[in-house]
Amino acid sequence: MIEFILFSRKGRTDGKFKTLREAGRLDVVYQCLLAAFFTSGAIRRDVIFHVILNGPPHPPVHLVFDGKKLRDVRTDEKTWEEILRKVLSGGVHQGIELRKESFQDVIRQKQNLFILEEGGEDVLKVNLGENPVFVLGDQVGLPMKDEKFALRFGAKISIGKKPYLAMSCVDIINYILDSRLKRE
Amino acid sequence: MIEFILFSRKGRTDGKFKTLREAGRLDVVYQCLLAAFFTSGAIRRDVIFHVILNGPPHPPVHLVFDGKKLRDVRTDEKTWEEILRKVLSGGVHQGIELRKESFQDVIRQKQNLFILEEGGEDVLKVNLGENPVFVLGDQVGLPMKDEKFALRFGAKISIGKKPYLAMSCVDIINYILDSRLKRE
Repeated sequence: MIEFILFSRKGRTDGKFKTLREAGRLDVVYQCLLAAFFTSGAIRRDVIFHVILNGPPHPPVHLVFDGKKLRDVRTDEKTWEEILRKVLSGGVHQGIELRKESFQDVIRQKQNLFILEEGGEDVLKVNLGENPVFVLGDQVGLPMKDEKFALRFGAKISIGKKPYLAMSCVDIINYILDSRLKRE
Repeated sequence: MIEFILFSRKGRTDGKFKTLREAGRLDVVYQCLLAAFFTSGAIRRDVIFHVILNGPPHPPVHLVFDGKKLRDVRTDEKTWEEILRKVLSGGVHQGIELRKESFQDVIRQKQNLFILEEGGEDVLKVNLGENPVFVLGDQVGLPMKDEKFALRFGAKISIGKKPYLAMSCVDIINYILDSRLKRE
């Protein structure tokens, strides 16, 4: 199992938004979901993606997307706008769970944690184990206090000097793990 | 300079569409543009992205996106829906050119061509040179006759056994080249 945890500073915590971008950059969440779960014609069943939304009106909200159970999804933004609006309005979608948990609540439950940062140790030299959990900031990055907290449970790793989009980080991690682990 | 050439089988060739997905999967083009050009807070100025649209009403159309000149762009799908609609309706956007050229017309002008295919030679063992050009199929893949044609000008390479999304291929290629080439 491979897990990603995205910290979204401003991601809206109800379904009242016009577009994902205007919903505190939920478009970034969509892009990460795309990279996390989709290959051509298939869904990565060995991935769990978490996002913790810290925007208005009632933060924090923890969404869990489980590749094993995910159904009725497509790759375009419009589809995910509808799904996220539904789930954030209290509706149900298979493979997605909404919990009233903070970033620190989620981190506390995890082991084998890797925090992605440009200054971390080169991912290619790190033993990631069989069930790595990767922590990503959004377009702004992790708040200092949450990063400090996460570092009590894991280590910083780096995929390079470029400040990649969160989505690209997910794509690159999946790519690296495809050749390292036995994945479906 | 790094170039990508995407073959879009059904991509619509005018601006009359409701969403990118319904426009012959122009959402795939959007996703590739995102991976090709954007890092966090910057645009990759050393990338040129080509797409050849072969959908109705008047194919083929060749769009050229030049990272050096690209302005007024953002990372969300809505922004690119508007840009693509404008350009395909005869409008102008800085850094984007529309040409009446076919896939084979474009290929014929290129050197140092690499066609991405699961069965190709491992990209990590191939010398890509300083100015590589990568050819990608869309969600369906390259038509046989066009692939054959491209192979007269280049070789098949592979980034792995997974059938990656076109977007993920672009992300992975950018990642590999970030560590191999001296890029801005």
